Amino acid sequence: MAKKIKVGLIGAGRIGRVHAENIRFNIPDAEVVAVADLYSDRIKDWASNLGIKHIFGDSQKIMEDEAIDAVLICSSTDTHSALIIQAARAGKHIFCEKPIDFDLNRIQEALQAVEKAGVKLQIGFQRRFDPSFKKAYDLIGQGKIGDIRVIKITSRDPAPPSLEYIKVSGGLFLDMTIHDFDMARYLSRSEVTEVYAAGGVMVDKTIGEVGDIDTAIVTLKFANGALGVIDNSRQSLYGYDQRVEVLGSKGCILVGNDPLTHTILSTEEGFLSDKLQNFFIERYREAYIEEIKAFVDCLLNDKAPPVTGMDGLQPVLIGLAAKKSLLEGRPIPINSPSGGGLET
Amino acid sequence: MAKKIKVGLIGAGRIGRVHAENIRFNIPDAEVVAVADLYSDRIKDWASNLGIKHIFGDSQKIMEDEAIDAVLICSSTDTHSALIIQAARAGKHIFCEKPIDFDLNRIQEALQAVEKAGVKLQIGFQRRFDPSFKKAYDLIGQGKIGDIRVIKITSRDPAPPSLEYIKVSGGLFLDMTIHDFDMARYLSRSEVTEVYAAGGVMVDKTIGEVGDIDTAIVTLKFANGALGVIDNSRQSLYGYDQRVEVLGSKGCILVGNDPLTHTILSTEEGFLSDKLQNFFIERYREAYIEEIKAFVDCLLNDKAPPVTGMDGLQPVLIGLAAKKSLLEGRPIPINSPSGGGLET
Amino acid sequence: MAKKIKVGLIGAGRIGRVHAENIRFNIPDAEVVAVADLYSDRIKDWASNLGIKHIFGDSQKIMEDEAIDAVLICSSTDTHSALIIQAARAGKHIFCEKPIDFDLNRIQEALQAVEKAGVKLQIGFQRRFDPSFKKAYDLIGQGKIGDIRVIKITSRDPAPPSLEYIKVSGGLFLDMTIHDFDMARYLSRSEVTEVYAAGGVMVDKTIGEVGDIDTAIVTLKFANGALGVIDNSRQSLYGYDQRVEVLGSKGCILVGNDPLTHTILSTEEGFLSDKLQNFFIERYREAYIEEIKAFVDCLLNDKAPPVTGMDGLQPVLIGLAAKKSLLEGRPIPINSPSGGGLET
Amino acid sequence: MAKKIKVGLIGAGRIGRVHAENIRFNIPDAEVVAVADLYSDRIKDWASNLGIKHIFGDSQKIMEDEAIDAVLICSSTDTHSALIIQAARAGKHIFCEKPIDFDLNRIQEALQAVEKAGVKLQIGFQRRFDPSFKKAYDLIGQGKIGDIRVIKITSRDPAPPSLEYIKVSGGLFLDMTIHDFDMARYLSRSEVTEVYAAGGVMVDKTIGEVGDIDTAIVTLKFANGALGVIDNSRQSLYGYDQRVEVLGSKGCILVGNDPLTHTILSTEEGFLSDKLQNFFIERYREAYIEEIKAFVDCLLNDKAPPVTGMDGLQPVLIGLAAKKSLLEGRPIPINSPSGGGLET
Repeated sequence: MAKKIKVGLIGAGRIGRVHAENIRFNIPDAEVVAVADLYSDRIKDWASNLGIKHIFGDSQKIMEDEAIDAVLICSSTDTHSALIIQAARAGKHIFCEKPIDFDLNRIQEALQAVEKAGVKLQIGFQRRFDPSFKKAYDLIGQGKIGDIRVIKITSRDPAPPSLEYIKVSGGLFLDMTIHDFDMARYLSRSEVTEVYAAGGVMVDKTIGEVGDIDTAIVTLKFANGALGVIDNSRQSLYGYDQRVEVLGSKGCILVGNDPLTHTILSTEEGFLSDKLQNFFIERYREAYIEEIKAFVDCLLNDKAPPVTGMDGLQPVLIGLAAKKSLLEGRPIPINSPSGGGLET
Repeated sequence: MAKKIKVGLIGAGRIGRVHAENIRFNIPDAEVVAVADLYSDRIKDWASNLGIKHIFGDSQKIMEDEAIDAVLICSSTDTHSALIIQAARAGKHIFCEKPIDFDLNRIQEALQAVEKAGVKLQIGFQRRFDPSFKKAYDLIGQGKIGDIRVIKITSRDPAPPSLEYIKVSGGLFLDMTIHDFDMARYLSRSEVTEVYAAGGVMVDKTIGEVGDIDTAIVTLKFANGALGVIDNSRQSLYGYDQRVEVLGSKGCILVGNDPLTHTILSTEEGFLSDKLQNFFIERYREAYIEEIKAFVDCLLNDKAPPVTGMDGLQPVLIGLAAKKSLLEGRPIPINSPSGGGLET
Repeated sequence: MAKKIKVGLIGAGRIGRVHAENIRFNIPDAEVVAVADLYSDRIKDWASNLGIKHIFGDSQKIMEDEAIDAVLICSSTDTHSALIIQAARAGKHIFCEKPIDFDLNRIQEALQAVEKAGVKLQIGFQRRFDPSFKKAYDLIGQGKIGDIRVIKITSRDPAPPSLEYIKVSGGLFLDMTIHDFDMARYLSRSEVTEVYAAGGVMVDKTIGEVGDIDTAIVTLKFANGALGVIDNSRQSLYGYDQRVEVLGSKGCILVGNDPLTHTILSTEEGFLSDKLQNFFIERYREAYIEEIKAFVDCLLNDKAPPVTGMDGLQPVLIGLAAKKSLLEGRPIPINSPSGGGLET
Repeated sequence: MAKKIKVGLIGAGRIGRVHAENIRFNIPDAEVVAVADLYSDRIKDWASNLGIKHIFGDSQKIMEDEAIDAVLICSSTDTHSALIIQAARAGKHIFCEKPIDFDLNRIQEALQAVEKAGVKLQIGFQRRFDPSFKKAYDLIGQGKIGDIRVIKITSRDPAPPSLEYIKVSGGLFLDMTIHDFDMARYLSRSEVTEVYAAGGVMVDKTIGEVGDIDTAIVTLKFANGALGVIDNSRQSLYGYDQRVEVLGSKGCILVGNDPLTHTILSTEEGFLSDKLQNFFIERYREAYIEEIKAFVDCLLNDKAPPVTGMDGLQPVLIGLAAKKSLLEGRPIPINSPSGGGLET
């Protein structure tokens, strides 16, 4: 392996660390050579154990380092679009966690900067790289279920995040459902043209007090005529529930859950099987590795990223439409992708 | 058992025959003593084999027979409300297949006649008597999943009915989804207050040409704050798909499908398990027996019917709202049960 | 259907009643016209409700009735061989519950009488007619798993029978495992050539005190080179456990259990699914109907019975060998079917 | 963590590499500082990529290195016992792959050397560390299924190994079934007192030509009165099949398989779910990490190894008895653990 991609990590929170460790241990073609984090003190031990040479408090240092080929933007959402623009101008390839931004204009600016710079940009919708969802996508592509009629997605977190997190999360649709919007686009290979959202506060009323909801059912219409529905909950006591179903003209694909173990206890009560994986870090362990492998492969072999900037923009568009739908109590059309805007 | 309930069957089509055979072979406390069918010639062999004494071409003969305690109304939907009124006036207890009528006023008239006559009326929502759905209902009643948050119902027929049938069916929502509306009310123990329907013609375009749809996603809001979603398709190549899921504050109940066999073939291709039951007659075999047993039990022991006239009216109300929602592209509130009407 | 098979039932215990009711309600081509039972008083109401005309205390009356085409022998095992001989001599076709006898000579005599009389004899191994096991058999016949290598059968009763029953049952191998020996022959389409039995008293020590065991593992060798293993228990708290697995050169077939419902409760504890069917009457409801349908079909259309006298003899041979194996602590060869005897 | 365990790896074949990589990436408390392999040239790149400092052609160098705390013996089986003795004499703690040896005397010598030296020895039965089997073990320990009655183990490799491998493997019972013998002991918490083996050559006749079998059913009796049965095949086209079932007085535990994905395709053919994991490296990925973590934990915290030398000896004893049983066609008693010998 002549060439190793040199990566600068921006933001060493939970997901940033996952990526860095995956690169270290599972992706021989890449190497994290620098990390920037506001709290650079806190990450020193972690970074040095991992053999990361440079630890910065400021991401600017990474932008300036000519040895660095690519950046992983894993900092808080409000910094994403500005960092994309800086990285693009610095000629770095970019992997950015979702969402790019909550503001469509800022997303457009970021995408334009990327386009102008001619760098590659991949957005962190890791579920596309999960073996089960990937297999569903492949089976659909092979025509195994014919034309798609209905897509159903169930996504339930084991427990709600902290109120602090929820306040800056952009709300359920832009924080949680955004993954499902991406999955809907991925599996349908079509764009969402209308969204209707119903939602409520059922898990924790303090979530409602900060203006968010914790439970939702979102109906989608697609450009290809298919229908979709997503159901979300911020609480699922039996584990992280991640299911997908795609009904087509020739059959149906079901993606089921991943249990903690395959051990069943059968007694007079019945058959008790295990809870589901705890949460996304465990459930999508392989997917996180695969998405970075795919990114590195794009850079090494000059391929188009498998999750593009437009794939980053569209789910935000749908999420904003869902928010508006919930507020106004009516379905909201989406004019995309040409205009890229909501009907207002 | 001193007393046997004497039953007159009106309409000996597919479902009427199922009930008569179930009574003959599985319900010792009842006896079909007469059958009325427009095509009385065609049913003679069937009826005599079953030991039914009287075969009429006109249901009036059943109404006039004082020995008959109860009627089973299994004729075409357009005759239901008039027959209910006649039977009530004749002092017969009534089991009537769904729906009572497509017209709310005629339903109200029928229910008033029943009330005035003081006879018992049970509506044929047989799914409530299916052991799996019944168990779900019981577990909810025992508080096993706490407060209900989301109800999801999947109902897919193996293949669409004939166009002739569809033309007089009242449309997908009043013919097929009506069972799901009932299931939603049954499991939630609450009333639907708003409905939003999305639908399309994906299975067979001739269904669209006669003004109906064959695929739908219907979002429900309940008086108790819960949300619901129903997805329907008129075609499911892998068999009759009947699933329910109820998410509550303490857990989730899933009712899965009933396969034809429990035989799995595992090869280099993977694990191939069997298709589902063919259709409702097979899938709800036990439920059809249980619902008539329950009806007979009401008569013998003077109990309230487990599926009331109001249970017959409400799903029609929701179905009409769903039709309106599809037409107008917006959610439709339902003022029920007090007023019993749609917002117009 | 011009001709109805006229059946005389001998023995109206649990299984005899099941057959008579199945004929009455599910098999239009046959009719039980007489029943003989030692306790004829006890069955009067049952028989008259079912429309059985003649009720006898003595099976001889059935043998003498020229209008009767066939007998169902459902009396206690010790009467089977003599009744077969009487029926054969009287020119009746015979359906006989398993086992024919515990004594090989008496079985041989019975089979010779049947052969001499030229009547048809079918043995009551109903599991062959279960849709799931039948499908396994058919898949094997279609070559879906290639050559058979290993057959595994799990058979566990929900609870042990009474000690009174066990005392006259012939022991675990001839009472319970006999069904599994038949299944092994049915699925392998080969004869057992050697058996090794390990067993113990683990459920109830009083079973041991009357000389029987309640738990066993039996290894089989087949003439075609395949291996087999059966595991039995007289107690299974999670329901009646009936599984089969057949490993072949191209794949594997698994026949799983039939749960009471398809309802799953998921909570913090995990996913709790339902217990299995209670016992054989419920589990093999369809199979009991199908085996009598097949018998009636043989008589009406002059076909060979699907479960022959030799199919009745062989499992007894294997069962006796298993008993001997347990006693002597070594594998016992079986010289069959030519000689039909155990090595001694 | 002040102290890191310094490990010398002996044998860098497939399993040796797995352990070294796991230590490098998943076990921060240990470090592979040297590797010895007969073909030291072939492993140079691999070792240096992994940061292993010393690469030797001769294991003696590892024994002489005073900085090394422990050795992992992953070389061919015929070297295990001698290496254990050398390592023990050198004062190294020892992790040794199964089996210790095919010869009971050499195993005894090795265990005596370990005892004399006072070093720790852990044997590589990794399945004990699989989360699903571990959970079964824990549930049994918690008394959830009461007293154990029957243990059933299914173990089928996806495809047979090369003939070269089979020739030196010790035969099916000592190469493959040995893991199942260990599982039987682990779950039963009891010793095997008798074994009866039936087997055949069904997968590939060349396996028979080198004196081995490829298919087997092995019946076990345990000191605590329980029974066991293991079924093995060297070929399973649907993937690596690893199941366990433990029937107890209060219930039953079933450990099922791990599919490649959770994606199901349902069509007119039925429901097609995915094949199983390919083979042990994938299936027991977590288990391989956990067993070395446990070994390291023993050294750091001076605990007893979870899989002892006696746990290494007993399955060899059972395997030799199984071989003898197959040869002589009779059950073979095992006098263990006191005498540790076979009846001869």
